[in-house]
Amino acid sequence: MTNNPQKRGVLLLSGGIDSATTGALAKREGYSLCALTIDYGQRHRFELTAAKAVASSLGITNHLILDLDLRAIGGSALTDTIDVPKNALSEPTSGEIPITYVPARNTIFLSLALGWAEALYADTIFIGANAIDFSGYPDCRPEFLAAFERLANLGTRKGIEENSFVIKAPLVNMSKADIIREGIRLKVDYRLTSSCYDPDTSGHACGECDSCILRRRGFIDAGVDDPTQYISKVRA
Amino acid sequence: MTNNPQKRGVLLLSGGIDSATTGALAKREGYSLCALTIDYGQRHRFELTAAKAVASSLGITNHLILDLDLRAIGGSALTDTIDVPKNALSEPTSGEIPITYVPARNTIFLSLALGWAEALYADTIFIGANAIDFSGYPDCRPEFLAAFERLANLGTRKGIEENSFVIKAPLVNMSKADIIREGIRLKVDYRLTSSCYDPDTSGHACGECDSCILRRRGFIDAGVDDPTQYISKVRA
Repeated sequence: MTNNPQKRGVLLLSGGIDSATTGALAKREGYSLCALTIDYGQRHRFELTAAKAVASSLGITNHLILDLDLRAIGGSALTDTIDVPKNALSEPTSGEIPITYVPARNTIFLSLALGWAEALYADTIFIGANAIDFSGYPDCRPEFLAAFERLANLGTRKGIEENSFVIKAPLVNMSKADIIREGIRLKVDYRLTSSCYDPDTSGHACGECDSCILRRRGFIDAGVDDPTQYISKVRA
Repeated sequence: MTNNPQKRGVLLLSGGIDSATTGALAKREGYSLCALTIDYGQRHRFELTAAKAVASSLGITNHLILDLDLRAIGGSALTDTIDVPKNALSEPTSGEIPITYVPARNTIFLSLALGWAEALYADTIFIGANAIDFSGYPDCRPEFLAAFERLANLGTRKGIEENSFVIKAPLVNMSKADIIREGIRLKVDYRLTSSCYDPDTSGHACGECDSCILRRRGFIDAGVDDPTQYISKVRA
């Protein structure tokens, strides 16, 4: 609980449940946090608004929103004109990777967090990756995160001099319900968060994309009231 | 020498000697290439002009110049207001990493190339990294490149399904003179390339930054006329 000024971290912040809860856990561990959000041309623009609100609620004053238009790269329903699938969540055990997967997104985001962490003299990168209640994205798995940590310590000045970079993904093996229960204990305000891949312009969630389905199930399983504002047809 | 349409590669192209020569080697191996150049806010803007000329000379029609302003991250003389050091090249054995190092640059660039390669159904990423006549950047070394290849096959759809991503850095253990000799054999037009970290607006090279020193030495050691246009005080 101590606030040791030596413990500096960069939080990858999307504005969803997982990154908000990860930020709260990092704060509890005593980290001084900077937050990095990538404006990658995602169709769900509202998550940028949510990220700002979450950063503010966590008391993070250094919040960098970096432009990187991944629409130029394409290959995903989140950055392309492909429709976001509805009511189509596969079981994680199916091995299927859905069309909402963005090629190499977490590799790209972690590498940007790494560059910023090195420039800020921060040692630790926090990411809300989860490999339990997830869409089966390959770059959310523990073995990927361990490989990135190794890379970080080979490919940077600070890494080779001090072998000090650590990638922390405290939620990686937690269910969505456990994440929400932990967040409630840490007083995370989930009203500020946004998970939907296809919200309306006011941020109302579709309730039917993979991310909404995982979020809704999580609140039900946690026995916690779901504060999400859904578009009317879902609410009805 | 066959042109097998199945062999698709993404070339990280800066417009310098190494990436131009790497592109020529990849073409000789029969790869169909797309080229990726990052406009990262580098002060040596002229390298973007050089990259376009080199891509054209290699017959590459799909050349993506992606905007990613790393000035927001800072920490380097190449993206910051810190002066580029002149006549200050350390020996590679010194272990010193100069201020022109850009935090995690090759990790970031390789991750972007990986995302694009996956979207393009390309297997191979070509990078002109070199760990002999270089400035001591950690992210040019073979162990870093091998770690990235491993990461690529853990963190992508194509990687986990086919374990197929390969990072090729054919120059990594070559001297600059050997690279230039090989390029001359492959008819690389080095007049089109630009290496200087601090050129004038017309692309004339300073002749004194680390990159210029390595380039000048390379042409001398190769016994090849140096086609570089230097600013007048160097030429004199």
